[in-house]
Amino acid sequence: MGESLTKSRRGTTQPARGGQRGAEPRPSAGAPQRQGGIGTQGDGGPQPAEGHEAVMLLERARAEVDPVLRAALGSLPAPMRRVALHHFGWEQADGTPADGGSGKAIRPALVLAAAAALGGPEARAGAARAAAAVELVHNFTLLHDDVMDRDTTRRHRPTAWTVFGDADAILAGDTLQALALRLLAQDPHPASSAAAARLADCVVELCAGQHADTAMERCAPGEVTLDEVLAMAEAKTGALIGSACAIGGLYAGASDEEVAALDAFGREAGLAFQLIDDVIGIWGDPRRTGKPAGADLAARKKSLPVVAAFASGTPAAAELAELYARTSEKEDLDHIALTVERAGGRDWAQGQAADRMARAMQQLARAVPDPEAAGGLLALAEFVTRRSS
Amino acid sequence: MGESLTKSRRGTTQPARGGQRGAEPRPSAGAPQRQGGIGTQGDGGPQPAEGHEAVMLLERARAEVDPVLRAALGSLPAPMRRVALHHFGWEQADGTPADGGSGKAIRPALVLAAAAALGGPEARAGAARAAAAVELVHNFTLLHDDVMDRDTTRRHRPTAWTVFGDADAILAGDTLQALALRLLAQDPHPASSAAAARLADCVVELCAGQHADTAMERCAPGEVTLDEVLAMAEAKTGALIGSACAIGGLYAGASDEEVAALDAFGREAGLAFQLIDDVIGIWGDPRRTGKPAGADLAARKKSLPVVAAFASGTPAAAELAELYARTSEKEDLDHIALTVERAGGRDWAQGQAADRMARAMQQLARAVPDPEAAGGLLALAEFVTRRSS
Repeated sequence: MGESLTKSRRGTTQPARGGQRGAEPRPSAGAPQRQGGIGTQGDGGPQPAEGHEAVMLLERARAEVDPVLRAALGSLPAPMRRVALHHFGWEQADGTPADGGSGKAIRPALVLAAAAALGGPEARAGAARAAAAVELVHNFTLLHDDVMDRDTTRRHRPTAWTVFGDADAILAGDTLQALALRLLAQDPHPASSAAAARLADCVVELCAGQHADTAMERCAPGEVTLDEVLAMAEAKTGALIGSACAIGGLYAGASDEEVAALDAFGREAGLAFQLIDDVIGIWGDPRRTGKPAGADLAARKKSLPVVAAFASGTPAAAELAELYARTSEKEDLDHIALTVERAGGRDWAQGQAADRMARAMQQLARAVPDPEAAGGLLALAEFVTRRSS
Repeated sequence: MGESLTKSRRGTTQPARGGQRGAEPRPSAGAPQRQGGIGTQGDGGPQPAEGHEAVMLLERARAEVDPVLRAALGSLPAPMRRVALHHFGWEQADGTPADGGSGKAIRPALVLAAAAALGGPEARAGAARAAAAVELVHNFTLLHDDVMDRDTTRRHRPTAWTVFGDADAILAGDTLQALALRLLAQDPHPASSAAAARLADCVVELCAGQHADTAMERCAPGEVTLDEVLAMAEAKTGALIGSACAIGGLYAGASDEEVAALDAFGREAGLAFQLIDDVIGIWGDPRRTGKPAGADLAARKKSLPVVAAFASGTPAAAELAELYARTSEKEDLDHIALTVERAGGRDWAQGQAADRMARAMQQLARAVPDPEAAGGLLALAEFVTRRSS
């Protein structure tokens, strides 16, 4: 008999996992800094509204997509509607209204920004349903991942399975996937079928990524290769961010080549985001990350810097293997973090992130050569990969 | 904290549940008998090929749909492909080929028969992808229901979660839902979008039905009303059978009214099937059902005849309540079955089934007035509701 949810691989109090299929960018205080060498905008010098552009785009996306999402959820039979509204942060567990916690709407904002970049305001206005569909798929995977991973909090609220039970969390996820595809099937836009096919393909990839993540959880860190963990992160995080951009392009009537470049842009930016998120998970300021320092290390997460450290073949890697194998109540997490750093894990991750962002920018320039038009996508990509440590 | 899969409501050895979202018709030996008064074919007398027509339609549907299904599953990443091929009975757990156990293809056969009934052979030939999509949705719900219900066998084989673990069974189900919608999104047929919207709506209803079923499992039998259990059975069993017929109609270019009548036909036939299946689950011949006599009673299933018996207000109902509350190793299942019968549960279920089939035939006559053209759908409906006890 195989693995069962009755045998949880981990405790129920640990933070979100390595592959951040469900991650939202961690809060990042302080004035954001554009990363050198990763922008395509050659106008030099910081903009007065730096970072603000992304925030405005996100707020606008929320305002445009939320009515579509609320209408879609409102159409559900009452029990599933209740689980979904709770998951989206719009209702408390007892059914009273709640406000907030539904995430930053990065994926819908990317759909809309990509549509605007290639087709202007009209294309953007026509892509609201597609943007909502992408957000529904994202949330369906969160509901299911939380069941599988036994994660108990999400966006500072109890996860659906802890409130409604596993069965209803699984069923609500199934329902959201169906709602996403229904939105596209009912969308008279000429791109809707191509978008639906692309989104369905993406779900297949997301599931393969989550499978790889759960399989890696059962391996020792030294058994996982960097290629494997990068492929897993691309499937789990990059695929949907890439699809969001590609679907926006489809809704703007973009060419196959432009759509492919948008997909690649999103995938590379998504991977950069994951790398930075993993760095922050080890060396981030707890006041900014909202997580205790070293929580990812305490949970023995096989995050990207850790796998890189293990793969380094350095004496520090051997030391790290010993530290990771030990369990102790009062372990020195700072020492483990330093060992990952000495084994090159931090430098590798930061270098990879910069490299991925550089590639993302190349792809963006292919898809949207006009820097003015590419501004929104660029701002969003920089927002999600902004360093907070 | 809510219900968790770690707290199974039931043992892991009990048979399939009341709402048979996943049920296949039980094997029924002996010469099938047409039910009196439920046919629209006024030609009287038994046909030489009675029953054989349905078997031929099912075999033909398998032959037409299997290549589409195999191609769709073959496109999956290896780990999910493996779970799916095992679930469909095409691979053993170790990856070696297996043959059989993928079910009777009743839903795809209904898609094709409805297309043929309203649009002839050409419409039928164009509906193979839609038929495969319906079968994929059916199997996605089986994978998830087996996880939730902790059912350990399906089609005489171990369920996916027992072999691959809960996480992979959930992910494989998610993947099959995506494949179903992708098949339709990529289908150039003019009805494909309408079919996709209808199938997505059906998934929402199937999930609501499964939710209702799991919620009822936690109630005492007397707390469940007949209306509730009938509504649950319609959502869990009737909805997809109705959608199969409706989608076939869409692919034949049928009018809204015809499509609605096909949906109603399938829903009524599906409910009749469920009622008969529940009767067989209590009073069926174990040699024919493949289940020990009274297994449904031993599991305290809230099947339709049992709920009807509880709702009867008879002295036998009070006696039944007492029997259902007792647990004993050596209980007299024949006595419980007799008590359900004395409380009117068997007569009610058989009367309801006949009534539902009569309504199904009325709807079929509305959708397909030509008895010759309706023959295939009629044969399939009779096949699934054929009594074997």
